[in-house]
Amino acid sequence: MSATRIRILSARNVLPLGRGQSGGAQRSDGDSKLRLLTSPHLSPSSPARALSSLSATRRGLPQEKMSENGMMSRAKVLTIDNMNPTVKKVEYAVRGPIVQRALELERELSEGMKKPFAEVIKANIGDAHAMGQQPITFFRQVLALCSYPELLNDNTFPEDAKSRAHRILQSCGGNSMGSYSASQGIESVRKDVALYIERRDGGMPCDPDNIYLTTGASDGIVTMLKLLVCGEGASRTGIMISIPQYPLYSAALAELGAVQINYYLNEENCWSMDINELQRALNEAREYCNPRALCIINPGNPTGQVQSRQCIEDVIRFAAKERLFLMADEVYQDNVYADGCEFHSFKKVLFEMGPEYSKSVELASFHSTSKCYMGECGFRGGYMEIINMDDEVKVQLTKLVSVRLCPPVPGQALMDLVVNPPQPGEPSYDSFLKERTATLNALAEKAKLTEQVLNTVQGISCNPVQGAMYSFPRIIIPEKAIKEAMALGQQPDMFYCMKMLEETGICLVPGSGFGQKDGTYHFRYSA
Amino acid sequence: MSATRIRILSARNVLPLGRGQSGGAQRSDGDSKLRLLTSPHLSPSSPARALSSLSATRRGLPQEKMSENGMMSRAKVLTIDNMNPTVKKVEYAVRGPIVQRALELERELSEGMKKPFAEVIKANIGDAHAMGQQPITFFRQVLALCSYPELLNDNTFPEDAKSRAHRILQSCGGNSMGSYSASQGIESVRKDVALYIERRDGGMPCDPDNIYLTTGASDGIVTMLKLLVCGEGASRTGIMISIPQYPLYSAALAELGAVQINYYLNEENCWSMDINELQRALNEAREYCNPRALCIINPGNPTGQVQSRQCIEDVIRFAAKERLFLMADEVYQDNVYADGCEFHSFKKVLFEMGPEYSKSVELASFHSTSKCYMGECGFRGGYMEIINMDDEVKVQLTKLVSVRLCPPVPGQALMDLVVNPPQPGEPSYDSFLKERTATLNALAEKAKLTEQVLNTVQGISCNPVQGAMYSFPRIIIPEKAIKEAMALGQQPDMFYCMKMLEETGICLVPGSGFGQKDGTYHFRYSA
Repeated sequence: MSATRIRILSARNVLPLGRGQSGGAQRSDGDSKLRLLTSPHLSPSSPARALSSLSATRRGLPQEKMSENGMMSRAKVLTIDNMNPTVKKVEYAVRGPIVQRALELERELSEGMKKPFAEVIKANIGDAHAMGQQPITFFRQVLALCSYPELLNDNTFPEDAKSRAHRILQSCGGNSMGSYSASQGIESVRKDVALYIERRDGGMPCDPDNIYLTTGASDGIVTMLKLLVCGEGASRTGIMISIPQYPLYSAALAELGAVQINYYLNEENCWSMDINELQRALNEAREYCNPRALCIINPGNPTGQVQSRQCIEDVIRFAAKERLFLMADEVYQDNVYADGCEFHSFKKVLFEMGPEYSKSVELASFHSTSKCYMGECGFRGGYMEIINMDDEVKVQLTKLVSVRLCPPVPGQALMDLVVNPPQPGEPSYDSFLKERTATLNALAEKAKLTEQVLNTVQGISCNPVQGAMYSFPRIIIPEKAIKEAMALGQQPDMFYCMKMLEETGICLVPGSGFGQKDGTYHFRYSA
Repeated sequence: MSATRIRILSARNVLPLGRGQSGGAQRSDGDSKLRLLTSPHLSPSSPARALSSLSATRRGLPQEKMSENGMMSRAKVLTIDNMNPTVKKVEYAVRGPIVQRALELERELSEGMKKPFAEVIKANIGDAHAMGQQPITFFRQVLALCSYPELLNDNTFPEDAKSRAHRILQSCGGNSMGSYSASQGIESVRKDVALYIERRDGGMPCDPDNIYLTTGASDGIVTMLKLLVCGEGASRTGIMISIPQYPLYSAALAELGAVQINYYLNEENCWSMDINELQRALNEAREYCNPRALCIINPGNPTGQVQSRQCIEDVIRFAAKERLFLMADEVYQDNVYADGCEFHSFKKVLFEMGPEYSKSVELASFHSTSKCYMGECGFRGGYMEIINMDDEVKVQLTKLVSVRLCPPVPGQALMDLVVNPPQPGEPSYDSFLKERTATLNALAEKAKLTEQVLNTVQGISCNPVQGAMYSFPRIIIPEKAIKEAMALGQQPDMFYCMKMLEETGICLVPGSGFGQKDGTYHFRYSA
């Protein structure tokens, strides 16, 4: 397939995962991207303009103002001063000012402006296909068949792709992906998800009624947080999140008006979770809010660590003791690279700890089609599994998701394929396995390479990338640059990343967008 | 295509829109569905069980409770009593208890239980494909090509489908629909949307920067409402919505904690909007909240009316005078059937009213792929256009939508096809036009038939269905049945619809789910 696929943007495949290419070629390409990254010419000029233009405000408008054509126009009904204050508090660095500037730079390049680089490289987001990773052929064949069922008569499609498409269409109203599904998701897909979880977790039972299909994992996470928020003042709901964190969490909490409780991952111990730190964060938070849930990202985003089974058990014990609802973001469950590391689902560990825990600890875990070897972000597929949720709350959850009608059906179909891929003996099995393995190997290689190359650079130190798709290296920023950044009202790491962008075209996300210990600076680099 | 398409659920095509079928066959099928509807055997038995089982609550759980296996388990962290109170207030009748019961009935039928009907007919929701409407061939061809670009080498696909797919893929990162798009939506799609709006509105300019692609129209509507909510107590944001309304509005307002301001449509005048009634509602609301926006659904849901140009102008004048942000839900813009009725977009009328209005009145209008002749609900495609939004608020809007990363890319691709369908001279034009016309004609015929048949029934009176896909007939419920419903704690129209479901298998939504004048009863019937 890769040979015939249109490759108009082939120049962008800086770190290609192309299955037809040699490992050597990948290494050299990857290396060149990383080399760029290690040589920022930190000159203190251009970024100021970029940022200040983005942060320009013009408050205090008069009730009437002169419009362009000289006509008096009324003041706006909806202004920055009277809009929803919780929305204003939302920050989302992964698509924040630096990405806005990257888009501007792309436009300027396309208009022929001269830059010190030929293209913008977006290492700001885990967007695998945009970086050249190829989709799994089988998945796309089935999606094409579901989109245009006339193709079921086309003998060039493998039989297993056809039977899978047939089965998905049978579960759709009027045999069309254009029909709404049940709000919780297509029943047959939820059943397949449950079987997948049972296999993954060594036979632990999974009830399809506990599966909710979602619009990507983000949708499920926000929905769960929404259920948990209540109270005012000192009894306001607090949610514990790791620092560094994925900024969806802080954004959702800001919007919902919940209290964000930071617990710090231990950078010195490969970004591990530490129960003492959880306890410290919780005890302090109880002074000013009502902590109700603990969020974990494993494998970690942006930090790339993989939690040990022991650590997960400790976390579950802590949640049980402290009466916290657990939210386990496990979207990188196939992205584990380091020797001796293994993915353990919170569900499995919980169930292995016996009925004292498995019958009581409330858990929601999240998965999606966007990461792992699939990288199908654009389809917005995902699911959540809820364990031990109160029956009445579950009724409310089902009602709540019904308001958005249903998750996108193509994303549901894709989720079905992810949890129920070709099996040994089926015509597509060999090619599926080959593609999947090649992609995971390439990701593993990039993880290793990232760590190696970054650690060769003076002023950068990077923990091993055990899993996920990111590294979060620590950077030493010269005192002079820090002062200059401060004078501009910028975070020093934002200043650093903005310079990197202006001078090399590489778009990183500053560590301040994820949170970091005071006085330390990082960036997230997406492989 | 219709001949070769798998038709496993053909028995469900009670009101088929099949392009290959004669008008006569459609009439007779539609007639039989409507006949069922007109003969409810209102016996006062079964519905009680159904509803009471759904509304069963078990509050006041002790901290520790006995689980099934006799083990003591801790009380839940998250309970109905300590969950988000605004979520509890959300109601969404279109997928509420009556639909839950319909799903149960379907399961019971599939398990061989005897019922007075052979299948459940879901007239609760405008879900065209589930009711047998066929997708537009061209749209699905392009989606298949985008899903599996290998098909671009397949000579059985028309050239215009291929070039359209090629163009969409070029706009996707790595030429894959699996990449995230810009949060506001793919730029080329937004440009096509802008061109569509310009054509639709007789050349009025439209800026692609004012277009936000959305996950169905619902997503856009909720996002806009979110921006508008602020204040507490008597300065809490109030939003004016029509009664009857589409319950997304009341659900979103409940969740956001905003005040719902009801203005009543005039049933005696074919569900028209009346400025005096708007004024009454607004004046009363100003006593207890801060009214900030006025929502209009045109063509109407659930009421099927089409607003006159004059009425729209009056509404815009009213919004300008009273300083209200306008939200125009125009997802049924192609669904206009009645002689003398025409769709006028709020944008067009606003711009025709001259700079006094066109430069100042703030407007958001919404469209989607789910309705009109497309009926592609499952893809969750949509857009909103914002006019005269404050620049700083727009920055906040763009930031807010970035948190959910991007709308589903297949839905964006579909939206692109809807706004940029085959043109005269292109290979697919004739078949596109034929399919589109056949579908719209069938919908028009059903609209007429619905009104005619319903009005033959004693105790039912139905306004002309001028547009959209619904009728909202008024029903007279016998005093005895009202008393019985009240005794069960049910709304009388819920009681009526539940009986209808149990006895005929037809799933309607009671008028109380949309709102209605006290003492009147209705149901919504989706054609």
